[in-house]
Amino acid sequence: MPHTRRPGSCPQPARRCGAIAAVALLVLGLSCPSSRGLAEAPPPAAARTMADVLAAATAADWRPLDPARTLYLDLDRGRVVIELAPGFAPEHAVNVLRLARAGYYDGVPIARVQDNFVVQWGGAGRALPEGVRERLPPEFEVAAGPGLPFTRLPDPDGYAPETGHSDGLPAGRDPSSGTAWLAHCYGMVGAGRDNAVDSGNGAELYVVIGHAPRQLDRNIALVGRVVLGMELLAALPRGPAPMGFLERPEEGTAIRRVRVAADLPVAERMPIEVLRTDTATFAALVEARRNRRDEWYRRPAGHIDLCNVPVPARVR
Amino acid sequence: MPHTRRPGSCPQPARRCGAIAAVALLVLGLSCPSSRGLAEAPPPAAARTMADVLAAATAADWRPLDPARTLYLDLDRGRVVIELAPGFAPEHAVNVLRLARAGYYDGVPIARVQDNFVVQWGGAGRALPEGVRERLPPEFEVAAGPGLPFTRLPDPDGYAPETGHSDGLPAGRDPSSGTAWLAHCYGMVGAGRDNAVDSGNGAELYVVIGHAPRQLDRNIALVGRVVLGMELLAALPRGPAPMGFLERPEEGTAIRRVRVAADLPVAERMPIEVLRTDTATFAALVEARRNRRDEWYRRPAGHIDLCNVPVPARVR
Repeated sequence: MPHTRRPGSCPQPARRCGAIAAVALLVLGLSCPSSRGLAEAPPPAAARTMADVLAAATAADWRPLDPARTLYLDLDRGRVVIELAPGFAPEHAVNVLRLARAGYYDGVPIARVQDNFVVQWGGAGRALPEGVRERLPPEFEVAAGPGLPFTRLPDPDGYAPETGHSDGLPAGRDPSSGTAWLAHCYGMVGAGRDNAVDSGNGAELYVVIGHAPRQLDRNIALVGRVVLGMELLAALPRGPAPMGFLERPEEGTAIRRVRVAADLPVAERMPIEVLRTDTATFAALVEARRNRRDEWYRRPAGHIDLCNVPVPARVR
Repeated sequence: MPHTRRPGSCPQPARRCGAIAAVALLVLGLSCPSSRGLAEAPPPAAARTMADVLAAATAADWRPLDPARTLYLDLDRGRVVIELAPGFAPEHAVNVLRLARAGYYDGVPIARVQDNFVVQWGGAGRALPEGVRERLPPEFEVAAGPGLPFTRLPDPDGYAPETGHSDGLPAGRDPSSGTAWLAHCYGMVGAGRDNAVDSGNGAELYVVIGHAPRQLDRNIALVGRVVLGMELLAALPRGPAPMGFLERPEEGTAIRRVRVAADLPVAERMPIEVLRTDTATFAALVEARRNRRDEWYRRPAGHIDLCNVPVPARVR
């Protein structure tokens, strides 16, 4: 059957590309359909695209993932890389690291895949390993003191008085209460809980795979973010039972194993970097996305939703 | 391997359930894990959950899909049902109906699956059938006159002065310009275009499968909404090439055929109903979702984002 690809008729059009790692482009959903623009002078600052901004980023704009809080979650089809957020959920991070090191998640099926909401897994039938606490304090928000990095976004948000990024993580902040919290954007990882607020412990984890369910913010502990591999989780077949549960989880996708990057020899760790969110480069990236400037866009939005801000990652 | 399901530890907890069609629950992502609550007195209005509201809905709260603008898009794994929006994109609707009736989409591969963005297909290599216009006016917004239904949401939005629903479709409105437009929420269907604003014609269609890319609003024509079957599109394996294109689309998922419901004998049409969005029931549903009230939620959001409002559908 004949089929001609027409990238130009995509809702997001072709963009100029410079010397950017291909993986960063993939994470951002940009493309390099031609070499057009490579030899051109850089466009004026006011018209910089996201690709322009990333192409001009320096080594200092990127930071390596911290192996001590990075998880490699291996599926048969590939790897999901998660960075934990001990700055927001320290007790949960301790538990999750201990669970991972004890092999608690290994072989566990992804038992829930609810369309436009979450995937979820947990070794619920298994006894918790030694040193893992069964109940944890509800780490739903933290004090937004001077020690907490927070790069504020310029636009208003309906769910939080202020939004921004804290060390690469989407977050809300309330100056009146002096608190901050992680936001349920696509790719965020949380710890399932029962009705009691202290009933979560990290043994059951979920990942947001749909439009941001921000109503969950401050109701449950987010523990980290998927940095790479979201496409593997988001493409899992949806569970047919209520709330997206699989009827036979054992026939679904299982987690082969979860390891802490720091436990692997250096040569086996993935050289992943994420764009720092406390830099002029990141601010320029946000601005380029708030107001898209290229031949395709006719009406720049003049606004960006917290969960529409990409935090690029790349494999060096 | 032992595994005990623990629905109670889901981020969205169990809810009370009444006499609601199971499909409506599925669309909403609710659950009926037990019969608890069935014999209880109804909770006070202020504490009604979404399930409560739907259980109390009457026949007049639902409307049948209009077969003249309903498409059945059949994949090998199931059916995607699309309702076109001639009120917002009349010329596109005419073209899409003609393309469907000419078999233009039949056998076409879904050539683009970009994570957290869109799926896209089109018979780009095929000649347009007779009667199908190659270029269409840019139907990006319409006059928001008294003839245009619009049920406004109570909360502010960053992308539009006002948001709400127009005959079941998420929409923005600007009183200063007197215009309204469809919004790029999860499940919305649009017509791909090239850089020229009149280059879209419906031969190439996309569906939003991720966090709402609202920056596209008013930059491209949305032509309808997926009413049922989103889980089939959203779970497609992501394309590895830039912008989510498949390297070998012919090996991916193909559209078996697309038909207009009105062209089928009545007995073969699906008896689908969608909840009306201009009723007190819908307003109550929105309020129940703005402020979740059950044992699990500790902090009602007091806000709802346009693209977080469900428009339930059911098969009678």
